Amino acid sequence: MKAYKDMTKDELLTLKAALEEEYKTLEGQGLNLNMARGKPGFSQLAFSMPMLDVINSDSDMRTFLGNDTRNYGDLDGIGESRKLMADMMSVQKDNVIVCGNSSLNIMYDMVSRSMTHGVNGSTPWCKLDKVSFLCPVPGYDRHFKITEFFGIEMINIPLYDDGPDMDLVEKYVNNDASVKGIWCVPKYSNPTGISYSDEVVRRFANLKPAAEDFRIYWDNAYCIHHLYEDVQDEILNILEECEKAGNPDMVYLFASTSKISFPGSGISAIASSLNNIEHIMKQMSVQTIGHDKINQLRHSRFFKDINGLHEHMKLHANAIRPKFEAVLDTLEAELAGLEIGSWIKPRGGYFISFNSLPGCAKNIVAKCKALGVVLTGAGATFPYGKDPEDSNIRIAPTFPTAEEMRQAAAVFVLCVKLASVEKYLEQM
Amino acid sequence: MKAYKDMTKDELLTLKAALEEEYKTLEGQGLNLNMARGKPGFSQLAFSMPMLDVINSDSDMRTFLGNDTRNYGDLDGIGESRKLMADMMSVQKDNVIVCGNSSLNIMYDMVSRSMTHGVNGSTPWCKLDKVSFLCPVPGYDRHFKITEFFGIEMINIPLYDDGPDMDLVEKYVNNDASVKGIWCVPKYSNPTGISYSDEVVRRFANLKPAAEDFRIYWDNAYCIHHLYEDVQDEILNILEECEKAGNPDMVYLFASTSKISFPGSGISAIASSLNNIEHIMKQMSVQTIGHDKINQLRHSRFFKDINGLHEHMKLHANAIRPKFEAVLDTLEAELAGLEIGSWIKPRGGYFISFNSLPGCAKNIVAKCKALGVVLTGAGATFPYGKDPEDSNIRIAPTFPTAEEMRQAAAVFVLCVKLASVEKYLEQM
Repeated sequence: MKAYKDMTKDELLTLKAALEEEYKTLEGQGLNLNMARGKPGFSQLAFSMPMLDVINSDSDMRTFLGNDTRNYGDLDGIGESRKLMADMMSVQKDNVIVCGNSSLNIMYDMVSRSMTHGVNGSTPWCKLDKVSFLCPVPGYDRHFKITEFFGIEMINIPLYDDGPDMDLVEKYVNNDASVKGIWCVPKYSNPTGISYSDEVVRRFANLKPAAEDFRIYWDNAYCIHHLYEDVQDEILNILEECEKAGNPDMVYLFASTSKISFPGSGISAIASSLNNIEHIMKQMSVQTIGHDKINQLRHSRFFKDINGLHEHMKLHANAIRPKFEAVLDTLEAELAGLEIGSWIKPRGGYFISFNSLPGCAKNIVAKCKALGVVLTGAGATFPYGKDPEDSNIRIAPTFPTAEEMRQAAAVFVLCVKLASVEKYLEQM
Repeated sequence: MKAYKDMTKDELLTLKAALEEEYKTLEGQGLNLNMARGKPGFSQLAFSMPMLDVINSDSDMRTFLGNDTRNYGDLDGIGESRKLMADMMSVQKDNVIVCGNSSLNIMYDMVSRSMTHGVNGSTPWCKLDKVSFLCPVPGYDRHFKITEFFGIEMINIPLYDDGPDMDLVEKYVNNDASVKGIWCVPKYSNPTGISYSDEVVRRFANLKPAAEDFRIYWDNAYCIHHLYEDVQDEILNILEECEKAGNPDMVYLFASTSKISFPGSGISAIASSLNNIEHIMKQMSVQTIGHDKINQLRHSRFFKDINGLHEHMKLHANAIRPKFEAVLDTLEAELAGLEIGSWIKPRGGYFISFNSLPGCAKNIVAKCKALGVVLTGAGATFPYGKDPEDSNIRIAPTFPTAEEMRQAAAVFVLCVKLASVEKYLEQM
């Protein structure tokens, strides 16, 4: 394979003609494929159907401690679900509040309360001239939407194979008191799939924030979402590391079962220091009388314990691995050596992140769309939807079938090639 | 019966001695009764148990429109649950968003978003020097906690038998631009049980707010919570009346199934003008990907339609009516003619509101507590927990059994008598 950059103009023009021919034949196929959102596929949803039998009209509705899950109470979640989520998040039960169906909603609430009430008694952020968040990029669009919604300035931090650029993180956090938070997906990161190295986690824990109300938003969305049984990422325990470093209150951890049981009908949790949990509970008690404890009971009884969760995740891994491989095999087979794009082979999570030549991502997404293949909008993985390089594209392979993914990936690589040729010709 | 106010000091002292004797005998009984919170009783929770069989592993999980409730989507709620809640709230389906398990949480969110983002583009309340809410009193403590939490000034408005003092409401709303909202429980009000008259609802709809971002928070928590089949309150449709009056955006309606299916595991909804709904959806889309649609499906299939809801509510009415009657009969038998307290016989809702002689409520609650009978804290029904008259006590009769309620009511009237005698003697 000859790298495009080494091609002559004539070679590129010939290639372009051939690619356009191929593109035209695909135009007629009326494809309708969606690789845009991290949604579980149909086969995955079936895995949790037996959960719906676990609680029925004959069930004992009381928790282990005897509380009736059908009535008000247990604002911090029923004991068994706190234990389950604690084990999943590698923290102690007392450090966990189990909430409703959405960890995103908990994150939103944490930011929202910080805006109106500050953090553990600090000045409400809405009273400050400037509040900013660090945003490792590429990252999760819905994180960035929350901070954008609240008018919080977002600062891009490059995300490397072992985590964010910690020199830059330390520079900002330790010197700029307007920096109040950082969005992290530390394991099987959305979208690149990388996990933070031990050194990165330790450097996080040892930050010396200029702002007393600085918090790490540690969204461990994919903590048990391995793709393989033999190669699995593990990350250091941030809560423990923060304690060791004398920063016990510096991190909020988030997780949910949205991609374990049912998206939208799972349970979610926040974990933090006992001090933070006490503050959160006080505020939460104004907001609600309690979360859905019957659903908490349903989850606890179905999964039983962390081993049950791990067993269940194997089913998911088996279902989605072929879809990931369909994409990765196609990328490898069609793009290797062309030097028009790079990607990481993830060992878990929900995404494959692709970096095109600078200035090509929007064009690729548009070309795919014209052929009926919908991708996450180019730029979505960056704050304000602006990828300064116009290069990153997030591929979500889980929702279509493996066969559909193969088709979609074929369309994708074609569009990558065509957009890349166009880019090189433009510059000649 | 001789009214206490007409008694001589000697008569009062004799009475006091007798009451204290009676009090002493109760001290030995080690009672443990709770009339503090509006929680359904054990027998009521059983009514909704069959709901837990409606969705099981064999169920078709798709909505009427074919959407899979097990996956992301339908941020505004599945169609059938929107229809169900719309019928319950007497509005159209398109005016409704079905949310999670707590209407209180929706109200909190509406206030919170108004703080940070204003209302439909108005200045965020957190940027204003003063924001205030009108609070018909006595009212729902958790409403007041929300506005207190956000530092919103609360202004007491007397609640009469037909609704709030509308002269006062008009005076404030139409002249004071700092007044941004009013908390209303328009039907079977918490705690007095009264319902707003047609005239009151029309006067609400015809307000001419000085503030463009003024909203009526219409918490129709007990909209179908009748106690009797023959005498039922109905209130005018506030959304329609607001439209007619040229104030289509002025009201937010709230409701939930917390006291229909399961507290904490029900579904909740907000209804408003299409314009408001559009604004809310835009903001909500930042907060969450969606609510628990499987639980929405469970509710829709179990209740089927508004008739199903009404039938179900008859079961609740039959279960709690004897408890209300246990209290009301005791009040009538023991206190009528003594002129030491007044109460309204509610036709629905969850509470009985008792007004003691001024300055006696705290004493009554304390005396009850000493005998093992827990009441909602005196003052809780007022903003900041301060009842200027120290007179209102909320009785929640639903959680204990009817027999327990009879015991508790007996304790209650004894404590009312004793506290009243003490008050009169104090003044002599």
